[in-house]
This record gives sequence, structure tokens and C-alpha cells, in this order.
Amino acid sequence: MSGIATVTAALKSQQIETPSWGFGNSGTRFKVFAQPGVPRDPFEKLADAARVHAVTGVAPAVSLHIPWDEVDDYAALAAHAADVGVRIGMINSNTFQDDDYKLGSVAHPDAKVRRKAVDHLLHCVDIMDATGSDSLKLWFADGTNYPGQDDIAARQDRLAEALSEVYARLGDRQRLVLEYKLFEPAFYTTDIPDWGTAYAHCLKLGPKAKVVVDTGHHAPGVNIEFIVAVLLREDRLGAFDFNSRFYADDDLMVGAADPFQLFRILHAVSLGGGFDPANDVAFMLDQCHNIEPKIPAMIRSVMNVQEATAKALLVDVDALRAAQLAGDVLGANAVLMDAYNTDVRPLLAELRQEMGLDPDPLAAYHASGYAEKIAAERVGGTQAGWGA
Amino acid sequence: MSGIATVTAALKSQQIETPSWGFGNSGTRFKVFAQPGVPRDPFEKLADAARVHAVTGVAPAVSLHIPWDEVDDYAALAAHAADVGVRIGMINSNTFQDDDYKLGSVAHPDAKVRRKAVDHLLHCVDIMDATGSDSLKLWFADGTNYPGQDDIAARQDRLAEALSEVYARLGDRQRLVLEYKLFEPAFYTTDIPDWGTAYAHCLKLGPKAKVVVDTGHHAPGVNIEFIVAVLLREDRLGAFDFNSRFYADDDLMVGAADPFQLFRILHAVSLGGGFDPANDVAFMLDQCHNIEPKIPAMIRSVMNVQEATAKALLVDVDALRAAQLAGDVLGANAVLMDAYNTDVRPLLAELRQEMGLDPDPLAAYHASGYAEKIAAERVGGTQAGWGA
Amino acid sequence: MSGIATVTAALKSQQIETPSWGFGNSGTRFKVFAQPGVPRDPFEKLADAARVHAVTGVAPAVSLHIPWDEVDDYAALAAHAADVGVRIGMINSNTFQDDDYKLGSVAHPDAKVRRKAVDHLLHCVDIMDATGSDSLKLWFADGTNYPGQDDIAARQDRLAEALSEVYARLGDRQRLVLEYKLFEPAFYTTDIPDWGTAYAHCLKLGPKAKVVVDTGHHAPGVNIEFIVAVLLREDRLGAFDFNSRFYADDDLMVGAADPFQLFRILHAVSLGGGFDPANDVAFMLDQCHNIEPKIPAMIRSVMNVQEATAKALLVDVDALRAAQLAGDVLGANAVLMDAYNTDVRPLLAELRQEMGLDPDPLAAYHASGYAEKIAAERVGGTQAGWGA
Amino acid sequence: MSGIATVTAALKSQQIETPSWGFGNSGTRFKVFAQPGVPRDPFEKLADAARVHAVTGVAPAVSLHIPWDEVDDYAALAAHAADVGVRIGMINSNTFQDDDYKLGSVAHPDAKVRRKAVDHLLHCVDIMDATGSDSLKLWFADGTNYPGQDDIAARQDRLAEALSEVYARLGDRQRLVLEYKLFEPAFYTTDIPDWGTAYAHCLKLGPKAKVVVDTGHHAPGVNIEFIVAVLLREDRLGAFDFNSRFYADDDLMVGAADPFQLFRILHAVSLGGGFDPANDVAFMLDQCHNIEPKIPAMIRSVMNVQEATAKALLVDVDALRAAQLAGDVLGANAVLMDAYNTDVRPLLAELRQEMGLDPDPLAAYHASGYAEKIAAERVGGTQAGWGA
Repeated sequence: MSGIATVTAALKSQQIETPSWGFGNSGTRFKVFAQPGVPRDPFEKLADAARVHAVTGVAPAVSLHIPWDEVDDYAALAAHAADVGVRIGMINSNTFQDDDYKLGSVAHPDAKVRRKAVDHLLHCVDIMDATGSDSLKLWFADGTNYPGQDDIAARQDRLAEALSEVYARLGDRQRLVLEYKLFEPAFYTTDIPDWGTAYAHCLKLGPKAKVVVDTGHHAPGVNIEFIVAVLLREDRLGAFDFNSRFYADDDLMVGAADPFQLFRILHAVSLGGGFDPANDVAFMLDQCHNIEPKIPAMIRSVMNVQEATAKALLVDVDALRAAQLAGDVLGANAVLMDAYNTDVRPLLAELRQEMGLDPDPLAAYHASGYAEKIAAERVGGTQAGWGA
Repeated sequence: MSGIATVTAALKSQQIETPSWGFGNSGTRFKVFAQPGVPRDPFEKLADAARVHAVTGVAPAVSLHIPWDEVDDYAALAAHAADVGVRIGMINSNTFQDDDYKLGSVAHPDAKVRRKAVDHLLHCVDIMDATGSDSLKLWFADGTNYPGQDDIAARQDRLAEALSEVYARLGDRQRLVLEYKLFEPAFYTTDIPDWGTAYAHCLKLGPKAKVVVDTGHHAPGVNIEFIVAVLLREDRLGAFDFNSRFYADDDLMVGAADPFQLFRILHAVSLGGGFDPANDVAFMLDQCHNIEPKIPAMIRSVMNVQEATAKALLVDVDALRAAQLAGDVLGANAVLMDAYNTDVRPLLAELRQEMGLDPDPLAAYHASGYAEKIAAERVGGTQAGWGA
Repeated sequence: MSGIATVTAALKSQQIETPSWGFGNSGTRFKVFAQPGVPRDPFEKLADAARVHAVTGVAPAVSLHIPWDEVDDYAALAAHAADVGVRIGMINSNTFQDDDYKLGSVAHPDAKVRRKAVDHLLHCVDIMDATGSDSLKLWFADGTNYPGQDDIAARQDRLAEALSEVYARLGDRQRLVLEYKLFEPAFYTTDIPDWGTAYAHCLKLGPKAKVVVDTGHHAPGVNIEFIVAVLLREDRLGAFDFNSRFYADDDLMVGAADPFQLFRILHAVSLGGGFDPANDVAFMLDQCHNIEPKIPAMIRSVMNVQEATAKALLVDVDALRAAQLAGDVLGANAVLMDAYNTDVRPLLAELRQEMGLDPDPLAAYHASGYAEKIAAERVGGTQAGWGA
Repeated sequence: MSGIATVTAALKSQQIETPSWGFGNSGTRFKVFAQPGVPRDPFEKLADAARVHAVTGVAPAVSLHIPWDEVDDYAALAAHAADVGVRIGMINSNTFQDDDYKLGSVAHPDAKVRRKAVDHLLHCVDIMDATGSDSLKLWFADGTNYPGQDDIAARQDRLAEALSEVYARLGDRQRLVLEYKLFEPAFYTTDIPDWGTAYAHCLKLGPKAKVVVDTGHHAPGVNIEFIVAVLLREDRLGAFDFNSRFYADDDLMVGAADPFQLFRILHAVSLGGGFDPANDVAFMLDQCHNIEPKIPAMIRSVMNVQEATAKALLVDVDALRAAQLAGDVLGANAVLMDAYNTDVRPLLAELRQEMGLDPDPLAAYHASGYAEKIAAERVGGTQAGWGA
């Protein structure tokens, strides 16, 4: 294939996973603002996610969050997903919203709480079995708020033990991906604060354990593309949680705060082979749309990832390598910037038309009347949200 | 008076204001953990605050948050405060929890929302009149989440207009104190993100407008004691909101994360005359006790401020000045560290005994049975909390 | 004029000032790497700056740094500038490289050192008189390394006194611009750490004192475009020092680390009227080219500012305002991103051709043989650099 | 032994290593300020280090930096060390001050430069053989300044290859310790930016490779004691480089910026067995005394580590564990703070007297006349410094 054909083919095969909870209400500790038409159950969330896929063509998988998306019949949920044109993606465990988890879950000082948490994780694997999901995504809110509150190393021991039990339960075609986060909700220590800690645990677990990079979970100044390059080199990059931050874990739409960083990250993915489906890197959105409408925000985010991916794929890698090896600092930088400065929107519009889609996904969504429809229909009941 | 007598006198006259909302449930966007015995109304909050004062002797004022502490009869509330041994301190406005405020309050693009917000602020001044409070404390959650969302300068114009109307309403013995915050809940711009912005607005308002320094509201690395020194030099330091942070606005107990910083801040207060009651600097706690019991956490915080104040007052200022003027870097630093490294707990224990208090406030509180009493009595009703 | 004609006209009239020291060797505390062809005196620096202007057409002014650029005959230096096609821009004072300045300059505890520093500043105004420069640019390395080392407020007093004396010396058509910096070389306090401090001093000095925003001088997360908007609203934005940072004051080429931030800053300039020559905002580069060739790096930086300016000018302000006033978060953001995502390089290439320039300034420079010429000619003597 | 006897014994056996370069001139990129009496060669550096040990009793080892401390006869240098009462500690490699290293050393794109760098590292092992040093301390200034400048993963490959060759050269009783640093002098990527990268390389090298934690080399907010606890749990903590920071890698005296953090770090060392000599954790100072006198600053730093160690050892671990396991957040924190708030200076004064030392090391140093002696004697020659 020609260069551009390769780019086009890669873009067509790209899969960006959307999070079920991204369609529910969310907010800050100060306020959750409710929005009209927000889903009231996992089935409605899947319907919304399906709309994102319908207009973008590259968002066929939907992550679930348990227990937020707990249902009686997971086979029925998976069937519903298929009906509306998507499939169940990763299963996200949630061990932070019961009162028992005030001081942690898998790293809690009390063995009873740890048992409860591990049982929940095992239940999530059951859901994977029932839905066909192949990935258990683990993020723990575990940590401490005050120096001395608990023993850092002891918590690592407990965490390792829990992970080990869950890992052993995974089937042959299942894996776990482990997320790290610098802080929040814990404000002194977090039990997996950085990629190094996640990586060290994954190494001990085995090849089916990989690291999740959430783009909002780092200290100021941390170079995320470096982490991505290193994890790919170690074959330990499992997934992305994409979002944007200016300050902390702001969870804004991906590409909204630093589109050049997103491009650099995807350039690292490209160089490291991460777009090769064989590498099994999941590209997931994990955002809180606190003040903007949910579905359009998700569409915009998918488009932002697409645009950054297109730019990353357009980098003239041969010219880049040549400049790098020649020690041509400005020349190498210029090769990278040439791709970044390209306006890829026409290319993506064309691509969508080739895929039978409207070249402008947001316009297509707005024209569809879906927003008005769900606002009218979804009255009564309890809107889904963080904690609901 | 001798040096130590001066220190002791200053410590006895110190007043640390507690926040009514610090006795209610609080948490993060992930979860609010409920605690037994949490107050269900402003009267119960005042009762709890009174217990903190009873065992520490230096916490006689209680800040209210409106509408969280809205009552029908403010005179009755003030009388209740007096009955239990405290008084109403600053009135904190809250213009961030109505759905109308999704895109801001006083800086909202819609004039109707701004009107509503200003009316609320004027209502807060009414409450000041009714309760005898002399300070209106203004913090605005206003800001934007995305580049382009609104016009930065236009928002400043709206903010200035609102502040001006409120300032004009203040009585002779009333003032407003204006708080700044780098981010959260807004994640791109905050309309008053730093002391410079708050200061510029106060300058234009007049002498009854001063700046609030919340110790958790700065970017990483910002030198807070510098700001305190500059604001005192400009006679524009109105109040502190004390709390601790490791990362963002973590709102941990003051002195828990960086006791040396707290000492340096109080040393700047000391040098700048801020402990002089004539300067009218309010020393307020503003914390979220997410996982620790409320009242003991508040007592501990009061003690932490006391200990840091004692150390700050113990600095040998003459020796310090001499070393500074001599350019003796290590000598000047050593003078400061000598005070910091002193264990002031015996001094404070003695001081409490002189004041007729138990030398150990936490032990006294635990021995009082109050925690058990409120846990037993305060069943039914809705626990107070952020938003309640 | 049509919209695009307005944009083109603004771009043609843009003036980006280059720093004389940006053509000399620079580095970190670990190492200064020498480069071939680096200037050995201010005349050679001006010659290099003239090459940047020759290929870009928008860099006609050159900042000097005193004493680095001290010469016997400033009129001759100004004449040389005119000969090679540029002019003398701002005069930058340097009071940080004499042994006397170890503990500061204008804020030093010793009055003799302060006197020496102020005399240097007055000498800089003499140079302004001699060269026709209209701006004195003040950055002070003053600060402290250790808590207690010196008195924060006393240093403010000394600083204010020094500034006042210098301000009084300014002629009618002269002004001073005051720079702030969070840290470095001082590592505990900096005497002007933030825009608020610089602004407060300028207010007291008078209308001829304005603030300099160096894009590398902020704490992590600080929103620079907010500061720019506020300073323009207050008519106190005097100049930019453009460069890029990932971590601290990295002084990389402008636009290299976060091109979207540069665009947002220039969008704030555009909205605030800062591109209007009447506002007298100076757009200066202040960078250290530690490992990349000096002149091409400067050309690239000029181009980066041009591209970001073009995008900022292309924002559809009417559509933006409409979306903002409607509270359309995603719509307003989309208007801004449309401009940012535009590839403006063809527009700028065309503009250069209209100005009689090569559409590709870097190619023109490389083809000129200038780099080879100066590498051959400038042997012997001492290369200019930080401190030389 | 009783509790206090255990503490005392541990403090007496503590060894704090001083860096030879800490006695030479240092500064920032803006200026290096020369000081009277600064050593002119490695022999004089050792003499100064010996004075620090003479008055503190706990600083018997001195790190060398090669080539700064290159001598013809290393056996003679080691003998000189013994003569003055100290010994050669770790050998620090320096591959960042030749012009060849502009784009890196062991990760440079050019194989010739890499060869040169590795040869230097092997030379350092020769010096270990000659001096009896048992540790090679590796810090690389390698990295890039611009996106695209070089390939992140390729640089990791080159780094791994270099480390592997050096590791193979180590003798049975020798080891290497690998340092990480977030940024500086490289301003976009650093080839070993975090503990995770250093750890991953060490894992592949083998048991004789461990990680160095420099307390100034982290992003804002990173929890260093967490890293220490994890590395001790993994048996991969090799050494500390102690210093203080408020902003970046400020290299202030240890304990000067955040004494509570230093205490927490040493508490983690204590809990993890790091004070056990069998664990072979080196406690080294690595500071730049830019404006303060070198030897007193080093004495003060040694004392600061001692005081923090004493506090860490005084923690009532049984009470701490009990509170932690009971989930008593405030109680556990209080146990830790009790130790921190203790004034340990009397304990250390007594300890020094038991060791036959003056209870006040700084007073003893000042009384010794050594400062005056070296200022008088060390005239002529070139003062040692960074790069000399």
C-alpha cells in the first residue's frame, strides 16, 4: 500500500472504546449537574454508546463499570449491545463506593474487607465470562490520607495477594489491565501511584497482566509518551484511559487541553507497534462530561483521538530516523511538527464517506433528533451517574 | 513582659475560627462516607463547634455557609451560639449548587443568573446584620472547563460589577474577604485563580475588601508565606482558610502535610503584625474530614495551628534580623530552625492549665462521652454535608 | 477589509523582537556547549539578528543585555544595527553576575550593593537615550535560598525604593517593563515571583510601568492566557518573553512544548487588543538554544509565533461570542479549535511571497551560506555567551 | 537493649556519605559564586570532608566524581583519605561535560560517543578497584530537548546495552547504583526519568544493580517515601542522594525545605529495614551550596539527617501498628507526629558527648579556625567546582 493508503487503512480499523459511565451524570465534589436524557440503566447507556459508534464508525466497544452496570442477566445485556451495534468491552471493577471501603479495598487493613473486595473482582470475571469481555480493568481507590495512617509496604503485600488470586481466576483468553493514579480520592499515598508500581505487580503476575495509562493520572510535568514507549518496549501496555487535564485528574474531553501531547502519545504508540491489533492495546475514553452534553462530547472525543492518530500516522518515519541518527535536532523536530501541523480533517471526512458515514459526525448526530428523543422519553426513574 | 510572657499572652488571645461545614459529612467526587453523630442542622453544628472551643479555649467563632446553614430565625441561631459558648463568625456565600450555576454565578454569561447570584450575596449581608457577623466571605466556583467556553475579560467585568454592588451594601463595621483558587470545580480557567486577581478587585472596591488565603488553593511550588507577607505589607490580608494539601485542594487537617510550611506562614504573620487584633486577620479552618472523625479532627487542627503559632512567636527576631543584615545565610536560617525544632507541647499544656483547661484537649474530648452521646441521639433526620 | 485581508495585514505588521543573547552560547549549570560561528561581540550579534529579520521580515528589533552587550559607543552600535537592517529594541538590565550580587541586587540587605545595582539600572537608561530604545526591561535574580535568610517584606521595601528611583529617571517616551519569575536562581523566595507582585509595583510606579510575561516563569498549571487577559484589561501588559517549557524555565524554542498554549495566549492578546500597535505590547523571544544551532532556532521560533498568531487571528470571534453567550460549551470550544486546527503554513508562505521573501525562511537561510561563512570567519576571540 | 538504647546505638553507627563536589564552588546557569578557601584538588576536598566527619562522627565516607576528581595515583588518594580519617565511598561517573556528550552519552545516537561513555564507566570501575570503593554510582544527563529529537525506545536499547557491559565488569564485592531524574539538563525526555525506569533496568541487570533515590529528582507532589518503601520491599534501594527542593532540583541543604518529608522518608527506611547495615543502603548528601559556606552547610546537613533519623527511630512502632490495624486514622497519625514533634537535639548532643565529640558540631567547627586557615592557605591555583 502507499503511505496514505496505510494511514487510511489504519484509521478505518481503529477501535476507540467508550465508557458506559461517560453517558451518565457526573461532576465534582461540589456539585453533579443533571442533564436531560441521561440514561437510567445499562441498556440505555449502551444505546447511547451505539449512537457514538453509528456516526463515527470507530467506537464499537463499550466498557462497563460494576456495580454501576450490574444487571440480572448479562447475556441479555450483551445481546442488547449486539442488537444496537456495539459489543461489551472491558469490565471495570469498582471497590470504592461501599461504606466498608472507607480505608481501602484490596489493601484494607481488615481481612474481611479485603475478602469482600476480592470477591467483587472475581464476580467481575464472572461477568467477563457471561458477556465475552476479555479484559478486567482494575483501578483501586486505595490509599491513605495521612502520614502514618497505614503501612505502605504492608498495603503492597495485601494488594499483591489480592491481585494474585484474581489473576489465577482468569481464563485463557482473558487478561487484566492495572491502572495507576497519583492521587485522589486518597490524598497522601495511593497504593498504585505510578506506572512503576503497576509494572512491578504485573511482572510478578504474569504475561496476562498489563498496565493502563490514564492520561490524567500523573504528576505535573511527567512525560506520558515516555511511559508509553517504555511500556510498549516491555510489552506491558494494556490500555489507555484517554482524557484531558490542565491541573489534576480533570477528566475533560481528550485532546481538549493539550492536543500536541495527545499526538506525541499516539506517535509513541505508532513507533512502538501499538496500533497493531496483535498488541492488544485498548484505546478507551474515560472522561467526565460535567457541564457539556454527554453524547456530543463523546463524539468529539472520538474525533479528537482520530485526528491525533491520523497525524501520528502521517509522520515521515524514515525522514525522522535519518535526522535523529544525524543528530539534527531541529530537522528531526521539524519532521514531527510537519505531521502535527497538517490539517487532517479533510482526510478524515473523506474516510468517513468511504465508510458510508456522514463526513461530519457531530452534525449527523444533531440532525438525527436523538438528543430530543431521549430527553423526551427518559423521564422518571433515576438518572445514571457516578454512584448510581 | 518577658519574651515568653508575650508569647503566652498572644497564644491565650488567639482565635481560631471553625467552619460549620467541617462538622458535616464530606468526601470526594467518588464517595461521601457518612459518620455517626454528624449534625443534622446548624444548631447541632454549633453545638459541635462549641465542644471544640470548650476543650481548646481558642475557637470561639464559627463560620456559617449559606444556604447550607439557612434557618428561619438567624437571631435565634446567634442566641443558640451564645448559649453554647461560641459566636457566629464569617458568613460564607455559596453560589455553586443550584442547577442555574452550571456555567458560573456572578460571572455567568446570562444576566439573570448573575442577578440571582448577587441577590444571594446581598441576602448573606442580611444574615450578617441578623447575626452580628462582621465578614462576608466570598468564594466563587466560577470559571470554565474548556478553552473558548467563555471570554476571560468579559467574566472579569461581570465579576467586578457584582462585587461592586455587594460592597456598596456593606455596613460600616462590615467587610468582605475575597478568596482565590487555582482550579476546581472549574478545570480550565477560574475567575479568581490567584492572589493577584483577588487583590486587584479588592483595590478597586475599597478598604473594606481584603484577600483570603486558603492554604490549599495554589499551584505546586507557590510560596504561600511570600503572599502572606506581601498582603500584610499592603494591608490586604483578610483571612486564612487553613488546611493541608499534598497534591491539589486536598483539604486535609492543617499541619498534617507540611508543618514547616504552616510555621513559615505564621512566622510571616508574626513579622507582618498579623497577630495584632487590630489587623483583623481571621484564622479560619476550612477542611474536609473525609475519613477521620469530625470533632477530634477539628480539635487536632486547632492544636496544630496553636503549636505552629507558638513556634512562630518563639523566633528570636532580633537575632534573626542581625543575621539577615549581616548576610549570614546559615546563621539566619538557624535562628528560624531553632524555633521550629522546639517542642512547644509542654508550653501549650501549661498554658491550657492556666486557662483552666485539660492540658490534653483530645483526651478531654474523648473522656467527655460527647461522641457517644451524639451518635446515640442524632439518629433519624438527614445528616448535614456538602450540599445538605 | 475582508476578514482574511485583516489577518494578512496584521501578520505583515507584526514585529517579533529577538534577544542578542539568544545568538551566543548558552547551557545549563551542567555544561555550556559551544557552537561554531557564535558571535564574539554585540556587533556580530546584531548581524545574526539581521539575518533572522532578512528571511522572516517580521523581526526588526533586537534586545540588548547590559553588561553583556556593553560597548564604548552606543551610537555606533545603533548605527550598525540600522546598517544591517534592524534597530535596538529593549534594554535588559543584568544585576546578577557580579560577586556583589550573591545575596541580591536591588533587594540586597546591604545598601552599598543596592546603590551599585540602581546605578547600573540608571546606566541602562543612559543606553536607552544613546540608542533610541524606548523600554527598560527589568528582571531581577533577587531572592533567597533558605527560610529565614532575609525578610520578605523588607526586601519588598528595598525593591520598591529602587524601582521608584529608576522610574523617575525615565524620559517622556520611555517606559519600564517588569518581569516576574517563580524561581531560579533563587530557590526559596523570589522577590517578584508572580504577576501580582509585578503588577502591584507597577501600579505604584505609574502608567509607564508595565508587566512582562515570560511564558516559562510560572508554576505548573498556571493559566498564562488568563494573566494576559487580565493584564490587558488593566492596561498593564508590557511585553512577552516567549519560550517553551515542559518542566521549569526550560527556555526551549517558543511553540515547541505546547503550541496550543501559545495559540491560546495569542488569542487572548487578540481579544484584548494587544495586537494593536497603540497598545505597545512587545513580542520578544527569550530562549536558550543549548543544543540546537542558534540562528535557525531563532527563525523557527519567529515562524512559530507567526503561525500561532495567524491561527489566533483566524478565530471567528462573532461565532465565538454567540456560542459563549448561548452557554454552548462544545460549540464555543469548537469555534476556537477550528482556527487552531487550520494549517496556516500556506497562508504564511503566500504572505512572505507578497513581502518579497522566500516562502520558506529556513530553506532561504540554509541556502544563503551564512552559517558556513560565520563558522569560517569567527575564529579566535571569545564567543559570546551567558556571562560573556 | 531498651528502646532508647536501640535508638542511640543506631545513631552512633549511622554513616552519612559526603560528596567531594559539595566542597567546591557551584551555582546556577546564571552564576557560580566563588568562595574563599575552596579546595583546588581532590586531596583538599578530602581534607574538608574529614573536618565534617571530625565534628559529627558520622560522615566517614566521601564520594568521588570522575573526572572531576581524576588523579594520577588513586592508591595515594585512598591513602590520603585514610590519613585524614575518612575513606573513599562511591565513585560517581560523569559523562556530560565533554562536547561529545551534547546529545547524550550512553544513549547517544552515535556509537562512537556511546563507546567513549562506556569506556569512561569502565574506567570508573578501575578506580573502584584502585580505591576500594564498592559502588559505582551512575547518573546520566542523557535525554532530549525537543519532541522528535531522538527515539525514546532506541535510546532505552542503547542504555540497556551500555549498562549490561558495565555490570559485567563489576567484581564480586562491587555493585552499581542507578539514579533517575525527571529533567535537567534535558528538557523534554530524560532517559531514566523515574524510579520505574531505573528499577526495570536493574531487574534485568541482576542483584548487584540497585536504585538511587535523589530527593530532588521528582515531579511536584510525588510521594518519595512511597518509592522508598516499595524499593526496600523489592530489595532494590541502593542509595540516597539527599538534598532539598522547593521547586525543581534545587539542591539545597537536606532538611531545609521540608523536614517533615525527610522524617517520613527515614521512617520508611526504618520500617523497611534500611538502617540495617546488611541492606547496604548508602545515605549520601548531594547538594549545591551556592551561596552558603561549604563546610558549615555540610555539617548542618549531616545534623539534619541525624535529627530526622533520630525522630524516625523514636516512632513507637507497636503503637503505630495497633492504630493502623484498628483503622484509627487520627490515632496512627498522632503516633507518628509524636515522634516528629519531639525535640531530639538534646539526645544528639548527649550522644556526641558519649562519642567524645563536642555537642555542637557547628560551634566546634567555627572554633577550630579551619575556615580561616584554608582561606589563607588556598590561594592561587584553580578552585574546584562543577566542571573543574
